[in-house]
Amino acid sequence: MSLVVVGSVALDSVETPFGKKEEVLGGSATFFSTAAAFFTRVLAVAVVGEDFPEEHLAFLRSRGVDLEGITREPGRTFRWSGRYTYQLNEAQTLDTQLNVFERFSPRLPARYQEAEYVFLGNIHPELQSRVLDQVRSPRLVAADTMNFWISGALPALRKTLQRVHLLFVNDAEARALAGEHNVVKAARAILRMGPGRVVIKRGEYGALLFEEDHAFALPAYPLEDVFDPTGAGDTFAGGFMGHLAHARTLDHATLRRAMVFGSVLASFNVEQFSLERLRVLSLGEIQARYRLLRQLTHFEEIQTSMD
Amino acid sequence: MSLVVVGSVALDSVETPFGKKEEVLGGSATFFSTAAAFFTRVLAVAVVGEDFPEEHLAFLRSRGVDLEGITREPGRTFRWSGRYTYQLNEAQTLDTQLNVFERFSPRLPARYQEAEYVFLGNIHPELQSRVLDQVRSPRLVAADTMNFWISGALPALRKTLQRVHLLFVNDAEARALAGEHNVVKAARAILRMGPGRVVIKRGEYGALLFEEDHAFALPAYPLEDVFDPTGAGDTFAGGFMGHLAHARTLDHATLRRAMVFGSVLASFNVEQFSLERLRVLSLGEIQARYRLLRQLTHFEEIQTSMD
Repeated sequence: MSLVVVGSVALDSVETPFGKKEEVLGGSATFFSTAAAFFTRVLAVAVVGEDFPEEHLAFLRSRGVDLEGITREPGRTFRWSGRYTYQLNEAQTLDTQLNVFERFSPRLPARYQEAEYVFLGNIHPELQSRVLDQVRSPRLVAADTMNFWISGALPALRKTLQRVHLLFVNDAEARALAGEHNVVKAARAILRMGPGRVVIKRGEYGALLFEEDHAFALPAYPLEDVFDPTGAGDTFAGGFMGHLAHARTLDHATLRRAMVFGSVLASFNVEQFSLERLRVLSLGEIQARYRLLRQLTHFEEIQTSMD
Repeated sequence: MSLVVVGSVALDSVETPFGKKEEVLGGSATFFSTAAAFFTRVLAVAVVGEDFPEEHLAFLRSRGVDLEGITREPGRTFRWSGRYTYQLNEAQTLDTQLNVFERFSPRLPARYQEAEYVFLGNIHPELQSRVLDQVRSPRLVAADTMNFWISGALPALRKTLQRVHLLFVNDAEARALAGEHNVVKAARAILRMGPGRVVIKRGEYGALLFEEDHAFALPAYPLEDVFDPTGAGDTFAGGFMGHLAHARTLDHATLRRAMVFGSVLASFNVEQFSLERLRVLSLGEIQARYRLLRQLTHFEEIQTSMD
């Protein structure tokens, strides 16, 4: 049940209509690890700079995240700053300082190489491939990507996708990658690129899972207060992969539950800035919202009187 | 189980990326009646001009729709023409010729006034109120509206809403009516305006139902081919209200089933131009897609092993 994540650990500066936070803990590997750690042991691979606060590493360690794969390099930590308008669905990037992340070349400690579950966060697809070179016999390799690589590194991405079992994308990324506006057609096109499964995240509208012969549609938990969407996608992936690694099966019922856990974790994450909500979140709250989401979406068979 | 609908009967000219149709059967009362007639007897109130083809009335009659409330007036029939781009979610209106619809003042035949279920299509809110003046003791009054009335006739709309039990709106209309960006907050604000229930239609993303103490979220049936979205909202309302009038109860389970039938009918309707798909649709196909939508959305309780 070992789950490896490779991604970024960052200091984010985020502005939303509800407030502003400077240099708070962020990064794909951070959100993913924190979410997944509710379900399973996570082995993290990332890089931080000399200026990265020790307390953030201590936080991840306190969640049982294995940090042997996080190296501290000379220079400053990766910084991202962005702003959200009232729509809250897409960030406007104000500034990106790659810093030590620019020379990030993921190296997996020996123990990590036996991992059964792997999540390739949103990094250059060539780096994603290099991670896979180091994993012996993964049971499930999942990956995230973004429009930047779809438009800027498509050949490398296509190569990586042939080694990926499950791809996480949002609507716009699915459309761009497939060159198809219709989301069902886009999903089918992505399945033909290699991954046997694709999860399409649609923010406040929910998420879709497509496999060759199977599909699942899940609405999002309706939130009255969305505070900061940063990290929602990685938190979703963390809840999803954490549940899979815990459950140790990949049947449809388990994949569907993973979708729900991903969605539940993401719904909590956006309720506060940075990882503030995940820091105080309990397993009981996660289970309660899972049940609420089930109540919210359940409907009965057709009554026979209608026949 | 009598269901009255008041709305438009029109001749539509529609252009989508997939083709173009001139002066085909359209109008809110038409889509609504055809969808609802799969479940119950519909009493239609509308106006057509001297030029309206008799074959269209014959079609509605063949579905068991009562046309006593459809009057033929001197002049031309209401015409709408619109265009959809590849996004297919919002029509660009090219031309609206109200013609006989401009002086439409709905009058309900005596039999209609005993109706238990009433659907007020998207007409001026004052006309909607005048319809309600003529209905003796409706069990459920549902209404549709649009941004044109929200921005142009808000006081009249607010008055009508106090007499409405259920409002159908789309995302943008809910936000505009409530002055709230968040859809949950918008729904709660609308409930405070009078209707005990609000259905928020979100096109390809599905639909939400809100009551004071109850909510339901339904993803849309994922379609590979969306041909023409015209009438999807009224078809949704028709399937929804048709099921309610047939079921004769308003408990949560029935309302949820109504949401699914509404969604299923709408999903068929957009597969072809105008009412082409509804014309050849069978009850068996409706039931089969209901079951598919249930399979698509079902997920199991949390496994106890996770505790």
